[in-house]
Amino acid sequence: MPDSRAVTSTQIQLIRRPSGRPTPEDFRTVRLELPPLAEGQVRVANEFISVDPYMRGRMNDVKSYVPPFALNETMTGGAVGRVVASRSESLPVGTAVLHQLGWRDITQDDAEAFRPVQEIPGAPLSLHVGILGMTGLTAYVGLTAIAELREGDTVFISGAAGAVGTAAGQIARLLGASRVIGSAGSEEKVALLQDKYGYDAAFAYKDAPVREQLPRHAPDGVDVFFDNVGGDHLQAALDVMNDGGRLALCGAISRYNAERPAPGPDNLANLITRGLRMQGFTLGGHLHHASAFQERMAEWFPAGEIAYDETVVDGIENAVDAFLGMMDGANIGKMVVRTA
Amino acid sequence: MPDSRAVTSTQIQLIRRPSGRPTPEDFRTVRLELPPLAEGQVRVANEFISVDPYMRGRMNDVKSYVPPFALNETMTGGAVGRVVASRSESLPVGTAVLHQLGWRDITQDDAEAFRPVQEIPGAPLSLHVGILGMTGLTAYVGLTAIAELREGDTVFISGAAGAVGTAAGQIARLLGASRVIGSAGSEEKVALLQDKYGYDAAFAYKDAPVREQLPRHAPDGVDVFFDNVGGDHLQAALDVMNDGGRLALCGAISRYNAERPAPGPDNLANLITRGLRMQGFTLGGHLHHASAFQERMAEWFPAGEIAYDETVVDGIENAVDAFLGMMDGANIGKMVVRTA
Repeated sequence: MPDSRAVTSTQIQLIRRPSGRPTPEDFRTVRLELPPLAEGQVRVANEFISVDPYMRGRMNDVKSYVPPFALNETMTGGAVGRVVASRSESLPVGTAVLHQLGWRDITQDDAEAFRPVQEIPGAPLSLHVGILGMTGLTAYVGLTAIAELREGDTVFISGAAGAVGTAAGQIARLLGASRVIGSAGSEEKVALLQDKYGYDAAFAYKDAPVREQLPRHAPDGVDVFFDNVGGDHLQAALDVMNDGGRLALCGAISRYNAERPAPGPDNLANLITRGLRMQGFTLGGHLHHASAFQERMAEWFPAGEIAYDETVVDGIENAVDAFLGMMDGANIGKMVVRTA
Repeated sequence: MPDSRAVTSTQIQLIRRPSGRPTPEDFRTVRLELPPLAEGQVRVANEFISVDPYMRGRMNDVKSYVPPFALNETMTGGAVGRVVASRSESLPVGTAVLHQLGWRDITQDDAEAFRPVQEIPGAPLSLHVGILGMTGLTAYVGLTAIAELREGDTVFISGAAGAVGTAAGQIARLLGASRVIGSAGSEEKVALLQDKYGYDAAFAYKDAPVREQLPRHAPDGVDVFFDNVGGDHLQAALDVMNDGGRLALCGAISRYNAERPAPGPDNLANLITRGLRMQGFTLGGHLHHASAFQERMAEWFPAGEIAYDETVVDGIENAVDAFLGMMDGANIGKMVVRTA
């Protein structure tokens, strides 16, 4: 049983609940000695850890669909790595595994805490915390189970150059959308959406009010809105939704750092007059779609149908910077921390 | 072919688009001579005409799910009456009919414009523009097709003493709701909701902020919200919705007279974290539920399961006052104008 002795793990802890935009001083890096493995446990060297917008909510002390991070304990979150020591027959050394013990370079736990990665030929391991993992599944669930995308729909995706957005645009197209429109935070991202991700139209939301820009790109209205941003994007979408349109609310990154509630859109009455359906979701209640999603991806990815970008930050000690950068839109596609 | 000669009809026309709250000066009463019946036509003496909140929207010059009222033409809307002259075999004299040629005492048109009433023993004709008609169907569709009410749900209904609200509370109970909560505009209405309509809890929304009152009456949260009011009611409901809750937006009477858009609720993010679904509707796309609704009512009504109130205003010349009173909440249950 090689390498099951004590080792040191570098981990990131929340030490103070941020007010507004988090700062590096809200976190600390600790080095903990992990004890020798107990029977049934495995030790995993993480290769990539995921930083995601929803984690901002967990930094507040608010009851929600995921419990808040505890202060002075290591944060958790998606990660992918390989088993480097094992006292479990089910997960031998070398197995690539997905798990929720992120924000640290090395972790160990009962084998049940880890799930072998269904590797796809040609796909880097990092994609399993991205477009082939929860991120891609979020896009897929939002478009299918929530928005009930139909062939021929016009789809608008806010924050389209982000992790979920880049996945959603492509999946919408592959599922039969006739027109895909995206918003992003810079002209560079807008170009990428059109050149690499097959968006029919895209605009930079910092250039002019979304409410002015969106109608120009959606002359025939929008059938499905996939929202990662909230605020002005939601209001603008409600203006242009077609009768019977569906709005899937996945995130509201524009509001995550807000210190107090802001008013909602002034045009919710369109829900009534146009028979719109607006539904929020988190993955929790929809994990049963994972196998259908994985089947699709196992076709699409090897066929070259799935483009992706990753913004990679090296080193567990830079994980907080990666998270803060992602909240500010510094990433294109998925932001990951390489811990190997 | 008796009584198919020319007659005089008293009709109400919109002569100016109201800004904010309509006033009597926005309307006029005209007396028009109706020509002799053509072949295939019938003449109907209306008995009751319906005044409904949605008509306020039709007074604006805005494209919506129903076209705006034309200026200087007689308004239209639900009505029930009897055929008094006929040149159509399908609708002999004496037939009770439903139709959309309200806002006048006598009307005539091709027989196809009228639909024979499916009379229910013991039910006054007026109920067919109320709880047995579109009003009841609106409540039924909102609870079933939109909110997908399940047995054991806690249901909150805003504007519960109105036409749709009194119907919705009873239908919710009959369909298996375990707790029904209502808001209304006065203590008198609140008492009625509890004493006559079987509400488990009710409160007067003018007494204190809805956001303060509702949580006290919904200690275990709300699964289904049926909204007739909008504004503060919607915001308060979003506070207390349980995970997976459904919000059926039927109306927003609090906003119909508004001259400019008002901000929406500040807690829409609950849609995401609690997986809520909020759907607006008008009856247009849901008329196929009418036969199921009528079957239910044909059981419930004769069994004494359906209570109702009507606020009856006499005389076509008072139809505008009836409409304005209804917008101000002067009605209990359905507001109708008796034209007979």
